[in-house]
Amino acid sequence: MTSRIAYLGPAGTFTEQAVRQWDSRQEHEATPVPTVAEALQRLVAGEAHAAVVPFENSVEGSVPATLQALLDQERVRIVEEVLVEVQFDLLVRPGTSQDQVRVVATHPHAAAQTRAWTARHLPQAQLVPESSTARAAQAVAEGTYDAAIASTEAARSYGLEASAERIADRAGALTRFVVLRHGAPAAAPTGADRTTLVALIWQNRPGALLELLEQFAVRGIDLSRLESRPTGEGLGEYCFWIDADGHVSEPRMGEALLGLRRTCRDVRFLGSYPRADGQARPVPVHADEQAYAEARSWLQEL
Amino acid sequence: MTSRIAYLGPAGTFTEQAVRQWDSRQEHEATPVPTVAEALQRLVAGEAHAAVVPFENSVEGSVPATLQALLDQERVRIVEEVLVEVQFDLLVRPGTSQDQVRVVATHPHAAAQTRAWTARHLPQAQLVPESSTARAAQAVAEGTYDAAIASTEAARSYGLEASAERIADRAGALTRFVVLRHGAPAAAPTGADRTTLVALIWQNRPGALLELLEQFAVRGIDLSRLESRPTGEGLGEYCFWIDADGHVSEPRMGEALLGLRRTCRDVRFLGSYPRADGQARPVPVHADEQAYAEARSWLQEL
Amino acid sequence: MTSRIAYLGPAGTFTEQAVRQWDSRQEHEATPVPTVAEALQRLVAGEAHAAVVPFENSVEGSVPATLQALLDQERVRIVEEVLVEVQFDLLVRPGTSQDQVRVVATHPHAAAQTRAWTARHLPQAQLVPESSTARAAQAVAEGTYDAAIASTEAARSYGLEASAERIADRAGALTRFVVLRHGAPAAAPTGADRTTLVALIWQNRPGALLELLEQFAVRGIDLSRLESRPTGEGLGEYCFWIDADGHVSEPRMGEALLGLRRTCRDVRFLGSYPRADGQARPVPVHADEQAYAEARSWLQEL
Amino acid sequence: MTSRIAYLGPAGTFTEQAVRQWDSRQEHEATPVPTVAEALQRLVAGEAHAAVVPFENSVEGSVPATLQALLDQERVRIVEEVLVEVQFDLLVRPGTSQDQVRVVATHPHAAAQTRAWTARHLPQAQLVPESSTARAAQAVAEGTYDAAIASTEAARSYGLEASAERIADRAGALTRFVVLRHGAPAAAPTGADRTTLVALIWQNRPGALLELLEQFAVRGIDLSRLESRPTGEGLGEYCFWIDADGHVSEPRMGEALLGLRRTCRDVRFLGSYPRADGQARPVPVHADEQAYAEARSWLQEL
Repeated sequence: MTSRIAYLGPAGTFTEQAVRQWDSRQEHEATPVPTVAEALQRLVAGEAHAAVVPFENSVEGSVPATLQALLDQERVRIVEEVLVEVQFDLLVRPGTSQDQVRVVATHPHAAAQTRAWTARHLPQAQLVPESSTARAAQAVAEGTYDAAIASTEAARSYGLEASAERIADRAGALTRFVVLRHGAPAAAPTGADRTTLVALIWQNRPGALLELLEQFAVRGIDLSRLESRPTGEGLGEYCFWIDADGHVSEPRMGEALLGLRRTCRDVRFLGSYPRADGQARPVPVHADEQAYAEARSWLQEL
Repeated sequence: MTSRIAYLGPAGTFTEQAVRQWDSRQEHEATPVPTVAEALQRLVAGEAHAAVVPFENSVEGSVPATLQALLDQERVRIVEEVLVEVQFDLLVRPGTSQDQVRVVATHPHAAAQTRAWTARHLPQAQLVPESSTARAAQAVAEGTYDAAIASTEAARSYGLEASAERIADRAGALTRFVVLRHGAPAAAPTGADRTTLVALIWQNRPGALLELLEQFAVRGIDLSRLESRPTGEGLGEYCFWIDADGHVSEPRMGEALLGLRRTCRDVRFLGSYPRADGQARPVPVHADEQAYAEARSWLQEL
Repeated sequence: MTSRIAYLGPAGTFTEQAVRQWDSRQEHEATPVPTVAEALQRLVAGEAHAAVVPFENSVEGSVPATLQALLDQERVRIVEEVLVEVQFDLLVRPGTSQDQVRVVATHPHAAAQTRAWTARHLPQAQLVPESSTARAAQAVAEGTYDAAIASTEAARSYGLEASAERIADRAGALTRFVVLRHGAPAAAPTGADRTTLVALIWQNRPGALLELLEQFAVRGIDLSRLESRPTGEGLGEYCFWIDADGHVSEPRMGEALLGLRRTCRDVRFLGSYPRADGQARPVPVHADEQAYAEARSWLQEL
Repeated sequence: MTSRIAYLGPAGTFTEQAVRQWDSRQEHEATPVPTVAEALQRLVAGEAHAAVVPFENSVEGSVPATLQALLDQERVRIVEEVLVEVQFDLLVRPGTSQDQVRVVATHPHAAAQTRAWTARHLPQAQLVPESSTARAAQAVAEGTYDAAIASTEAARSYGLEASAERIADRAGALTRFVVLRHGAPAAAPTGADRTTLVALIWQNRPGALLELLEQFAVRGIDLSRLESRPTGEGLGEYCFWIDADGHVSEPRMGEALLGLRRTCRDVRFLGSYPRADGQARPVPVHADEQAYAEARSWLQEL
């Protein structure tokens, strides 16, 4: 039986590319949905078995809609991550030459990442914002605009061709997508894992953030990402999104989670899953499973 | 001579409201500009004496375009801040009744903040995203849509009227705007000041963020905001935006800045300026100017 | 069957007073031994069931011989503590008047603690050091000296009388004695307990002591005593004697011990036992047993 | 004019050896005094230009009398340190053979450090405590005992000879002596300096010791010694003796001293002086004078 995947649409975006990269044999039936929130609702309703949504971008930062949707759905967990290199082409209808381009549509983020290129190559063109790069490509196919700045994927989806390729001002931009499931247990540890958490600290306690970081430091855990986000309760009220190296089944991570749970106003566990880059980060010798096991047996004997 | 202000347009947004709130006697000539970047370019070019742009919102978080523009222009400083309560009305052309509303336009952020109200009162209406709430109001005035979710300010700008007022799902949302100048010295200390900084830490040094926070903690300085943002150099590379309680002319803040400058990869100082809420935060007795003066004279004598 | 106690002699010192205070019904057979080391050897050999030795003094600090002896005997544990107020009298043979006193003997510590009194009341007297205050009293009884500065206990032991009472320059000095057993399990928790440890840190790791203290701080444990002592391996090589508030059976203390065991070069557990002052120290709400139990059940469910 | 030195006597102790090592050309007139306190009183009275007293020993730890005397005299400073290897010989009157030794006198510290040797070579001998190893040697010369465990220096002073040499159980024990002056400015920095301080923390503030250590850590200063000592005000009241790497004239050390002065109940500065081992400790690149100078000029420009 084919399982169903919901991904943030429309077709032709980098999210579809992430789906293909993850499901390279196309064993799943992938459906675009208009919002991240809807992708998660489908998971919760059992209409999709997995969801693929963008999480953060190396240029633009995290994707607020994804963070919010994850907070809103308690039992949705990250089970995998996918890294996609973000590249942009200038897409036109077949037959259009570059000097015929007067109006270019794209998503504002893509416009920002190709600003230098367009200033040099299309100094006269008017730039029109669209809600996604794929939507821009579609509008080009419909004849609304002359060109779109979008992914190679979008050319295929909408029958366009690339008038110029790889036009991003800065090479190597990456977007990190996450694969979500509902009610899933944490993936088995692989030795190169990441754990994603959200911690809400007590605002009125000076040093509360320092204490939060020390909960990880004393257990030899490095953080690869720390992002403050407003809680919506007022200026100056933040929660912290944390990516920590390691897996919830490791004793050092379990103990750190206990520490957060005890000292924070709230903690949300969003999953332990393999790193997409497969790079195992060294665990300090005093924090690995053997060190914990040895210490525990010593304590037992006391 | 009237001085010129550039603000993020179009007219009728909350930014215009911030301008009016700040310049209540309307002594300045205020001009809307299409982007935050352009507002700063006008400052640098000497075409504007001040710029007013949104900085962060208690629901949506910081405004990436403002943060990026501030990083791009070295000598632009924050000299003041303005807090504006964010409220939304349902704006219609005079004569339209609420049950005639079929299509509602607004900015996606505003849609998100009024979702519960529209689900209850306009369950059948179609929601169309626009690039700003003011642009949505203008389009209603032009007859494109039946209603816009926008500010009271926008009703005045475009000749609309409020069919429903204060429809945000959560009351009390605030947006913090900043007033910028080019080449300006730090504002004089008032006793209730804030200092805004950006610090780039050494990524490969575990504990670097902890050390950064300790630079403030040992000098008795509280942080009211800490926000990580990608540097654009790759996933996992962050800089930290910091709002700290106090003024650069206070010895504790000067010493903390020295500490950051020594230990971080880079530090940007973006200004010391009065808090909009005027609330002086207590300075620990061991960190106030007198404690520093007394300690310095003790050290001199050694 | 009467159990046997070895205590640091000779008879008539404050240690004997500690024995009487602890064993107020005199149910045990108490024997003075010449050194702390011998008291512990008797425990290990099974010739004594308990030992009472001085641990620290509020004026002189810790008692090196006791610390060393505890390190030398692996299975000896502290099971109780006794606080004795240190007071000194000027003891003479019955019939001697104060103006007949030419030569006064005492232990150098006692001389130091009564210096102002003797300068004022016995300005002409010669002070002779003896190996203990009790030995000084005995020598007075034997006719060697005119007076001894010693405890009230010593007067009774050696048939002397107090020519002046409570002559210490600073009132309220306390000595803390410990009751030791061999191979004993930790005493049951009372809610007002102390845990004594010795930690050997990695000298070449800067910040190792800070990390040690953080192992306690993140678990909400206060330290009532921290004392560095040379390890004998060279100048600059220290171990740290620690008294921590709480009992090894509390989860916060267990976790802190695990942390020390993992990160220190060596840790010695010397016992959890009731505080002599009976004062329960408040446990932070995020570190008590309930907080740990709640956090553990949350972690189980993940 | 010959300057006068007071040192802790009697002649023939390791302190005299320290004096000779320091004043190898014997340019000063050295006088033994009975107590450390008296050595300092002579300094203050102008009767001595320098004093040499023992500070700490790698086996026994610090010398309480020296620490107390330094606290009692406000303007006495450490200007130099001298390391002396502690070795013990078995000293006898010329002509005495080792099997004639029945009674051996020495200071209890020396007895402790030669315990294994005496157990093996003089199992039948009676050990008698004396107030110093030199006093024991003198008593041997006077015929009171058969042998003394004392320094080679003592043999020369009292006309004895070594029946056995270098009998300490553990080789390489060192004693650190300090050279004191009254009202002296800090010695000029050499690049390999030490600073000695005493800090009194606020006892009722949990984490106060952690904060004290962070004052050094954030300025990149390592501590080579940290010793808690009772203040005499009650059990659990400590001050901390600190040896820190660096010189008070370095900006990092000056700033750390300011921090201590602001946050501690009291701080005493006891001197910056060259390390006896001449080993410069690496200064972190972010904490050296250049880093401070660069940061200060950056701050000036803000």
